[in-house]
Amino acid sequence: MERNIYLSNTDLEEAVSLYLEKLEPAKSKVATEKADIREAAGRVTAAPVIAKLSSPNHNAAAMDGIMVISDRTFSANEANPVVLNRGTDFEYINTGHLIVEPYDSVIMIEDVVVLNDEQVKIMVQAAPWQHIRPIGEDIVAGEMILPENHLIRPMDIGAVLSGGVTEVPVYERIRIGILPTGNEITDTYDSLAKGKIFDTNSWMFRSIVEELGGIGERISPVEDDYEKLKRAVLELAERNHMVIINAGSSAGSKDYTAQIIGDLGELVLHGIAIKPGKPTILGMIAGKPVIGVPGYPGSAFLVFEEIVSPVIRALQRVKAERPALAKAIVSRRIVSTLKYREYVRVKLGKVGKKLIATPLNRGAGVTMALVKADGILVIPKNSEGYEAGEEAPVELVNDLTVIENTIVSIGSHDLIMDYIGSILARKGETLSSAHVGSMGGIMAMKRGEAHIAPIHLLDEETGEYNKAYIEKYLAKEKVVLVKGVKREQGFMVAGGNPKRIFHVEDLKRSDVTFINRQKGSGTRILTDYLLKRSGIEPSDIRGYDRDMTTHMAVAAAVESGTADVGVGVSSAARAMGLDFVSIGFEEYDFVIPEEYMETEMIKNFLQVLRSAEFEKILQELGGYGI
Amino acid sequence: MERNIYLSNTDLEEAVSLYLEKLEPAKSKVATEKADIREAAGRVTAAPVIAKLSSPNHNAAAMDGIMVISDRTFSANEANPVVLNRGTDFEYINTGHLIVEPYDSVIMIEDVVVLNDEQVKIMVQAAPWQHIRPIGEDIVAGEMILPENHLIRPMDIGAVLSGGVTEVPVYERIRIGILPTGNEITDTYDSLAKGKIFDTNSWMFRSIVEELGGIGERISPVEDDYEKLKRAVLELAERNHMVIINAGSSAGSKDYTAQIIGDLGELVLHGIAIKPGKPTILGMIAGKPVIGVPGYPGSAFLVFEEIVSPVIRALQRVKAERPALAKAIVSRRIVSTLKYREYVRVKLGKVGKKLIATPLNRGAGVTMALVKADGILVIPKNSEGYEAGEEAPVELVNDLTVIENTIVSIGSHDLIMDYIGSILARKGETLSSAHVGSMGGIMAMKRGEAHIAPIHLLDEETGEYNKAYIEKYLAKEKVVLVKGVKREQGFMVAGGNPKRIFHVEDLKRSDVTFINRQKGSGTRILTDYLLKRSGIEPSDIRGYDRDMTTHMAVAAAVESGTADVGVGVSSAARAMGLDFVSIGFEEYDFVIPEEYMETEMIKNFLQVLRSAEFEKILQELGGYGI
Repeated sequence: MERNIYLSNTDLEEAVSLYLEKLEPAKSKVATEKADIREAAGRVTAAPVIAKLSSPNHNAAAMDGIMVISDRTFSANEANPVVLNRGTDFEYINTGHLIVEPYDSVIMIEDVVVLNDEQVKIMVQAAPWQHIRPIGEDIVAGEMILPENHLIRPMDIGAVLSGGVTEVPVYERIRIGILPTGNEITDTYDSLAKGKIFDTNSWMFRSIVEELGGIGERISPVEDDYEKLKRAVLELAERNHMVIINAGSSAGSKDYTAQIIGDLGELVLHGIAIKPGKPTILGMIAGKPVIGVPGYPGSAFLVFEEIVSPVIRALQRVKAERPALAKAIVSRRIVSTLKYREYVRVKLGKVGKKLIATPLNRGAGVTMALVKADGILVIPKNSEGYEAGEEAPVELVNDLTVIENTIVSIGSHDLIMDYIGSILARKGETLSSAHVGSMGGIMAMKRGEAHIAPIHLLDEETGEYNKAYIEKYLAKEKVVLVKGVKREQGFMVAGGNPKRIFHVEDLKRSDVTFINRQKGSGTRILTDYLLKRSGIEPSDIRGYDRDMTTHMAVAAAVESGTADVGVGVSSAARAMGLDFVSIGFEEYDFVIPEEYMETEMIKNFLQVLRSAEFEKILQELGGYGI
Repeated sequence: MERNIYLSNTDLEEAVSLYLEKLEPAKSKVATEKADIREAAGRVTAAPVIAKLSSPNHNAAAMDGIMVISDRTFSANEANPVVLNRGTDFEYINTGHLIVEPYDSVIMIEDVVVLNDEQVKIMVQAAPWQHIRPIGEDIVAGEMILPENHLIRPMDIGAVLSGGVTEVPVYERIRIGILPTGNEITDTYDSLAKGKIFDTNSWMFRSIVEELGGIGERISPVEDDYEKLKRAVLELAERNHMVIINAGSSAGSKDYTAQIIGDLGELVLHGIAIKPGKPTILGMIAGKPVIGVPGYPGSAFLVFEEIVSPVIRALQRVKAERPALAKAIVSRRIVSTLKYREYVRVKLGKVGKKLIATPLNRGAGVTMALVKADGILVIPKNSEGYEAGEEAPVELVNDLTVIENTIVSIGSHDLIMDYIGSILARKGETLSSAHVGSMGGIMAMKRGEAHIAPIHLLDEETGEYNKAYIEKYLAKEKVVLVKGVKREQGFMVAGGNPKRIFHVEDLKRSDVTFINRQKGSGTRILTDYLLKRSGIEPSDIRGYDRDMTTHMAVAAAVESGTADVGVGVSSAARAMGLDFVSIGFEEYDFVIPEEYMETEMIKNFLQVLRSAEFEKILQELGGYGI
């Protein structure tokens, strides 16, 4: 069995600059053509655009008013107004209109006293050429309007037309072949066989290519077969300026990408010191760039942004834009290896004056982290990461306007948070929920990093929810406990409850595999409370050590048969079509700092919480009370 | 004659928020539809998007390697390796592939020692579920992938497909009717009759509308006729979600826009306290926004950005992005009125550590200022402006990456600067030329605000060019004088030289109108030197007081007959088809601070200056020597 070995661990900058140097032949393959300037936004000029006509092409009024012969106004002042006769001394004129002989000056209409249809009176003298736009004030025929290699924007369209030019020389749009590969990859989206994975990256790529002004030629996934892959790569390279091969770039046994590039052309580099994204392949086939992009969506997106986009920009002869940077406080410790530059997607929120960055799930396979991210925290190679509370630079994905209108919720997970967020979106607000468990929420509140902390924490002594925890952990902070919803917790089991699990004692059975929630979550505390009350040791339970961070993830594990039972809310069981054995209702409430209670954002949040629309959603989800 | 009076001088924020409040009925007219997520980038969700399937939909390998039964690895360590048999103890697996029963753990290929085709050896134990992505790790069926009112981006496409969803509910694209008006406006671009103006704004508008994801329905210009305009407005309002009427919004006599809006619906506001852009009209017809945008391109663009775009964004239910801000040093005094908020377009450049903002021509009719601007300096209402050297906030139009690759040239104007800039664009560099005359360049150099100052300054005493001025004004600065080109100065006169102008004495003639260059320009200094030498007083010359800031503008004035003669370079005369009476060659050189001589940017500049390509351009332009 042959396996690829990663050839290198090259630094990103080195890899990109090495590769860009090899692009000259590829750039010369980009043809030039004529484009109608009115349709040319986003195109790049292939030669300077020179004005054919001057603008304005005549001396024109710069104001609404009257055009006059300046000589005849010299004696005018407040004490000695001058009366002018229409047709001989003056003529009415509007902004932009032609100044005709013998007139050589314009007086604003505000400075004109109309006596009758034929006469006006003026109290100020008019200097020659005042309020007149001279020929060529804007553009003079023969002047250069746009240089070559200029990315055409809407305002350029106006200027080029003003200069009497309608056709401009541009480079053709860059065509990029996109090849998804892998036996497990399918693009039949109506159902998904076990073991298959939808092809999602190629559509994401095509969409970015179009955003950049290119044309993406995506073909259906090709299976892991050397000859078929080779043929597909060759065909795409023939028709396009560049080819992207997705997946097939890790050291898996069926990864032919590097081999095919080597056989058909030159393998420039395999392996870059970034995480995610290490198994990237850079090659050239027939003078055209061919890039092997890793298959995990997180890696794929990052490699696209950091390597593929700069290559496309270089072919287009456009300078790549650098993302906006901001400084943020890291809300949790982020550990990184010294070996790679690591990219961590983060949620951002403005809490008080602090910009808070909360890391999202770092798994490279996690597309939801791409969707939820407001920014990307870059941890340099040779850095071990950041401690909680440290300041770190973040590349912004979302605009700061959006981030400042974001309610930062850190704490326990519940489906209802997504629905509240969706309703708030109508008001242009975003609800950012970080799921770190109830205790995690309390700690974030203590550090001043959240607007809201949803919690459901059972006090073992009193049997009461939440209050005791706030008194214990947030005694010094001025916070309000806003009553949220009652929700039903219980055992989530497969449909029909085949293993007959009804009581906490059933978790001890050797034929029962449990799936747990993470430490610090309210549900974990509830589970531990139930076990303790029944005198059951965690070590007695098969699967106690395997934990998930959301109700839905636990439900999914039960649904798939990985586990037989987990503790979670009724709505999650219902959403996954599971049976549910109730333990009882708990109180899911919100801790909110007093200082934010009167802000527009929190007022809107509370309004949604009390709305009829939200009550209806609770009823539909099931398992909630108010 | 009826004339509109501006109804108000409302603050921009007040105007926009007043108007946005009225938009609810217009928003309800935007229909929803289903879109294929693969084609839905830039669309806005009309309802939450809920996952139909979990992703992954099976327990999958997170690494390339072997899947094993964790129980059988517990005894493995460096001292006691465990041998596993293929088919019973392990199976090879690639990243993303299905974990099948009874396997429950994955060992990375790097940790596997292959003994033969059927056996491997391992030295580390495998924990249950290690390197396995559990079902739903990314997305769990029933989870919300996107909230409503979400602008769909490439990464969202990936996540939605991962969740097994191909069709998403979106709002239809916003349709915007665009109506250019005015008797003088034409959209026949092959020639331009005197007094006519090309319609350029409507194409610029359409391009911005498309950039924002809308659909622009532009129609041909409609003349200033109440009934015709009314019919066009009504028809566009019927078919579209919104209408933009261009021009017809100032107080000119044929400005029917406000009247028509009032007659057909509600005139919400006329007149906003911004400069340029004051005569803006906000109205509603049949519950749809109708906006009268002023005709000058500068005003039009600004009103579009500050008012029309936010309205389109509101109809699309998308939050408008706020432009990035930077702090810049103002290189010249900028005076503003207290009455308006004023927007001044500026060129930006990074000179040393300073970001320098140089104001561009403030005429509202100047499209080239739109093209050349890197940023917009906002002067608040009730501010008198900024002094040179003051720090001011600037909204960035260009990315800072572009600005930092910009050579800032401040000084004398010559056509060759545009050509050098165009060649530099190939290397991803921008040449920003501010035309303030040679003395202006010397002063900018003194203040450390330019990389290059092009000058051609004749010393009256020695008859030498440039050296004396540097010794006098830049004695303390460490600068280098780089020899540029020799260029021919002379009298620019109409073709055939009808007024027979050959000598400086001819300028005194009463039948000759002169056009001058601005004070501080090298050409003005040359002119004054010639007059002095011949004993001619400026007051003897008709037109001495009217000045232009570029050679081309002087040439255009002569070409149009506004003036009979001006002093300028041979290339400008040739570009405008004028006759040229030579005075002699002068030296157009570059002052460059020593510290920048070794920078990549300046080295590239000098390389262009010495290139064969540039020499060829000089020959084609004519009137230059090296």
